[in-house]
Amino acid sequence: MKIGIVGLGLIGASLAISLRSQGNKILGVSRQEATCKTALTKGIVDQASTNLNILTNTEIIIVCTPIQSIVTTVKQLIPYLNTDTIITDVGSVKYPVVETCSQLWPNFIGGHPMAGDTKHGIAAAQAHLFNGKAYVLTPTPNTPPEAIEKLKAIALAVNAIPYICEPAVHDRVVSLISHLPVMVSAGLIQSCLQDEPKVLKLAQDLASSGFRDTSRVGGGNPELGVMMAKYNRQELLRSLLRYRQNLDQMIDLIEQENWDNLKLILQTNQQARPDFLN
Amino acid sequence: MKIGIVGLGLIGASLAISLRSQGNKILGVSRQEATCKTALTKGIVDQASTNLNILTNTEIIIVCTPIQSIVTTVKQLIPYLNTDTIITDVGSVKYPVVETCSQLWPNFIGGHPMAGDTKHGIAAAQAHLFNGKAYVLTPTPNTPPEAIEKLKAIALAVNAIPYICEPAVHDRVVSLISHLPVMVSAGLIQSCLQDEPKVLKLAQDLASSGFRDTSRVGGGNPELGVMMAKYNRQELLRSLLRYRQNLDQMIDLIEQENWDNLKLILQTNQQARPDFLN
Repeated sequence: MKIGIVGLGLIGASLAISLRSQGNKILGVSRQEATCKTALTKGIVDQASTNLNILTNTEIIIVCTPIQSIVTTVKQLIPYLNTDTIITDVGSVKYPVVETCSQLWPNFIGGHPMAGDTKHGIAAAQAHLFNGKAYVLTPTPNTPPEAIEKLKAIALAVNAIPYICEPAVHDRVVSLISHLPVMVSAGLIQSCLQDEPKVLKLAQDLASSGFRDTSRVGGGNPELGVMMAKYNRQELLRSLLRYRQNLDQMIDLIEQENWDNLKLILQTNQQARPDFLN
Repeated sequence: MKIGIVGLGLIGASLAISLRSQGNKILGVSRQEATCKTALTKGIVDQASTNLNILTNTEIIIVCTPIQSIVTTVKQLIPYLNTDTIITDVGSVKYPVVETCSQLWPNFIGGHPMAGDTKHGIAAAQAHLFNGKAYVLTPTPNTPPEAIEKLKAIALAVNAIPYICEPAVHDRVVSLISHLPVMVSAGLIQSCLQDEPKVLKLAQDLASSGFRDTSRVGGGNPELGVMMAKYNRQELLRSLLRYRQNLDQMIDLIEQENWDNLKLILQTNQQARPDFLN
């Protein structure tokens, strides 16, 4: 199969390596000439260019650009497409992307391979990035069934586990398990920084694994955090407001010294958490 | 030195092993006859009893009972003490304990070795539990300097790093780095459980390392969580109210689409977090 990949960062280049290793012909497009050269030298792609015109006659095009460039890229791709070319993306928010792109191109299907690394760029690309990870596809009622089947096959080909859901359900779920944790964790770090120097210094000295784990995602990439909030704003706000209600309830219980009900909440959490660990 | 240890759970028995290996004579007291037998059979202590009267003529007594039993234990110990016997405890909240116990016994000094394990009890005890961990001592202005020096030596003997601070400062610090994370993390799990079944199921399937880390301490031991809230109630409430202000500020910024200020917060956090990781 001839597969085009636009954007040769960590995700794009990792998809390229994995799919090329299975005999697909991979055409890579990057804005950077240097990235194209690296992709060719390392055998990540069969052809590379800074020009989208190399993607004529590809069966599937995977747009792996940052989320803010997906719509523009799809628009720019249209002159080079056959009517049956399938376009997908790898953005971490689906509803706004799918809403626009499926209007632009009926054979568009939103995708979100849920893999990552602290390292970025083509240098960090690896064949096994998606092994055992979820690969969410978000068709609309108008998405052609063949497009869904072809992309499920792509997900399986990179050893990921395909999940199918509506774009809005995807965004609600990631707001809860991925974007809310960032804000919750960020608030924790902030709160520790606002005490007097003597307390702050000792807090830094005494913080151990509990603080380390709870603060990890809140101390991560600021651009990524803002992007989540910007593109998944409605769902993140909904999750944050629910979270605040839960926080208020715990504050009330502690104020009222209602230890029985606080314990019930913590027991429910203890029992529920293992279901979230794969 | 003759050292008494009351309570032979994970912390008490680990202190016993470590201090005994350096030639101290260790007298252990447990409420359970079976625990006394284990302590003797495994060579954790030199003598063991369910009766506090074996602690006559010890130089230092370390009370390693659960926090709610510390004051009662100190009261019960008094008939067996020499005037220069030093008593310390290992409770994770210091102000309420120190306030009462230093009235009961002038040679009392609060202690908090900040080590633990997911496993509990004498079976999990290990000589190296305190290696490189913080051991906080919380004297009052009336604590005899010799008592502080002797307990610093105990902390160093178990390879821990001694820190000295006021009881109230300790409680403020642990409310921020240890007790607040539990509540913050608990609220996250709760919020995920409150959605419709379709969303909940997919959230369970898709949750990965970000959710796992941020939810870890909120899905921990419920009794321990309640105990923190109960004994460090004032400081925890103070930390929670500050946290809520920070959360509200982030919600406002996202509502107002003020991405610049949200980014500033996340940048500050990213820069600040490494100072909390030892």
